[in-house]
Amino acid sequence: MTESILKYQRFIEEKLAEFELPDSPKNLYEPIQYFLNIGGKRMRPVITLMACEMFNDDYSSATEAALAIELFHNFSLIHDDIMDNAPLRRNQMTIHEKWNENIGILSGDALLIESYKKLATYSPDLLVQLLPLFNDTASLVCEGQQLDMDYESADNVSIDNYLEMIQNKTAVLLACSLKMGALIGGAELNTADKLYGFGLNLGLAFQLQDDILDVYADQNKFGKQIGGDIIANKKTYLLLSAFEAASSAQKEELVRLLNETDTGAKIKGVMDLYAALNIQEKTFSKMNSYYNVAMENLNAIDCPDEKK
Amino acid sequence: MTESILKYQRFIEEKLAEFELPDSPKNLYEPIQYFLNIGGKRMRPVITLMACEMFNDDYSSATEAALAIELFHNFSLIHDDIMDNAPLRRNQMTIHEKWNENIGILSGDALLIESYKKLATYSPDLLVQLLPLFNDTASLVCEGQQLDMDYESADNVSIDNYLEMIQNKTAVLLACSLKMGALIGGAELNTADKLYGFGLNLGLAFQLQDDILDVYADQNKFGKQIGGDIIANKKTYLLLSAFEAASSAQKEELVRLLNETDTGAKIKGVMDLYAALNIQEKTFSKMNSYYNVAMENLNAIDCPDEKK
Repeated sequence: MTESILKYQRFIEEKLAEFELPDSPKNLYEPIQYFLNIGGKRMRPVITLMACEMFNDDYSSATEAALAIELFHNFSLIHDDIMDNAPLRRNQMTIHEKWNENIGILSGDALLIESYKKLATYSPDLLVQLLPLFNDTASLVCEGQQLDMDYESADNVSIDNYLEMIQNKTAVLLACSLKMGALIGGAELNTADKLYGFGLNLGLAFQLQDDILDVYADQNKFGKQIGGDIIANKKTYLLLSAFEAASSAQKEELVRLLNETDTGAKIKGVMDLYAALNIQEKTFSKMNSYYNVAMENLNAIDCPDEKK
Repeated sequence: MTESILKYQRFIEEKLAEFELPDSPKNLYEPIQYFLNIGGKRMRPVITLMACEMFNDDYSSATEAALAIELFHNFSLIHDDIMDNAPLRRNQMTIHEKWNENIGILSGDALLIESYKKLATYSPDLLVQLLPLFNDTASLVCEGQQLDMDYESADNVSIDNYLEMIQNKTAVLLACSLKMGALIGGAELNTADKLYGFGLNLGLAFQLQDDILDVYADQNKFGKQIGGDIIANKKTYLLLSAFEAASSAQKEELVRLLNETDTGAKIKGVMDLYAALNIQEKTFSKMNSYYNVAMENLNAIDCPDEKK
């Protein structure tokens, strides 16, 4: 499995290296090239190729769609970085930091258009399937980013709000990546829709896993600082569940902890409350229920088991 | 003629009024609705409908393409306003001013995606013609905006640089508006290309006319302050031509005038130099040559004269 993922990753890296942009205007295209070179796991284009190969041995027919997805993803990162005021992305300077904000806005726009150019290479019969799916997904990703910004300053975010936000911001693009690959591979629409459901639910499970790992990961394996979300008062599934399950006294304590400046005491205090309220188990159980729905969708697909 | 333009304008306003966006997230879609309601001449969608009607009495088949063009144009205005730090657009607050910059970026992105949704409504055989044209045009518009920003601070902008910039920033979208209408109306590709050439050259002529009007318009008819470009040291065709034609002494004088703080003296000084160098005539002649090429393209089109 890992070996096969490496194969697709190498394939995508090669294709990205071959992806040519005009030389001029330098301030428009150089930042795009720079950002694409920062790297990443290329998870989305990889699953597009894999989904295609489930139905067709020649996964290279999904190359342009995989690139469209990866270019779109990078467009969204470039603009998100501006909105989040992030100086770094994978330890490299973000575009608005290395150049300036205007160049970040405009090169992001140009990259979004490049993703549509990749889509436009498909034959008419595929294009009419891929374009509306891509458009709808792109709208949802924007909606997710808007909700994420809205919720940062809102004090009445429900668990359902949060799940809708992560579904739009993260899960739909994974789902779209799979469905596009399946359609290009020749899958029937209802089969491709099952892969969409698989990706959507797996994306949600992944995000809840991320929320759990931030607090409960083995520091040595995780690579990030434990409790980063707690320190930043990030409205994760854990925190929102804690607020929902807390008694009035516990709620008061939680609000007090959000304003605690001693980060060690803050992390310990929040984790104690999580323990008292069984938050880890609750989140784990929600994550598992998404994972199970994901697998139900996958198992319902009619294709040789080794391809799954 | 004017009456028929009014007919198309009303048609576009009706269709824009029917254009529905989701209610939520409010901070994403309300700004778009607000911006579309600010109005404008709707010149681009109008010429899409007109181009369609040259070849097909039912111009309503070009509605979605006309809307795609208008939505795209508004997306570019929203982002340009951020980059130019403009507080007002048609005397109304710009989105980044009324909400904030992040909302300006993201609602612009969402609007660009809406324009692709309009395109996606066409049948496969039209879509494969329209999408690449729209994509290429969109890239050029971004390039034009980047060049415009680059040239603001550059001190070696040539006339050719300027013409390339206005061609990309303004003229190609007019050309694309016409070509899309023609293709939807059923025109042959080489006929549609002639309309593209007509639009491109007319767009260039319009921009040079704008440059001339800023300095030589009848103040009462023009509605804008005379000499605004001169006060702002805007690198117009006039100013760049003056630099190109000036003797070293005149160049020195021009540079001195750019730093002149008395705006009355500045406008008079620059206009005196323009007069000494025949700049109005030169620009007028260049404008006319674009106009003539535009009309040659139009006249070469095989369709009843009254439709042109």
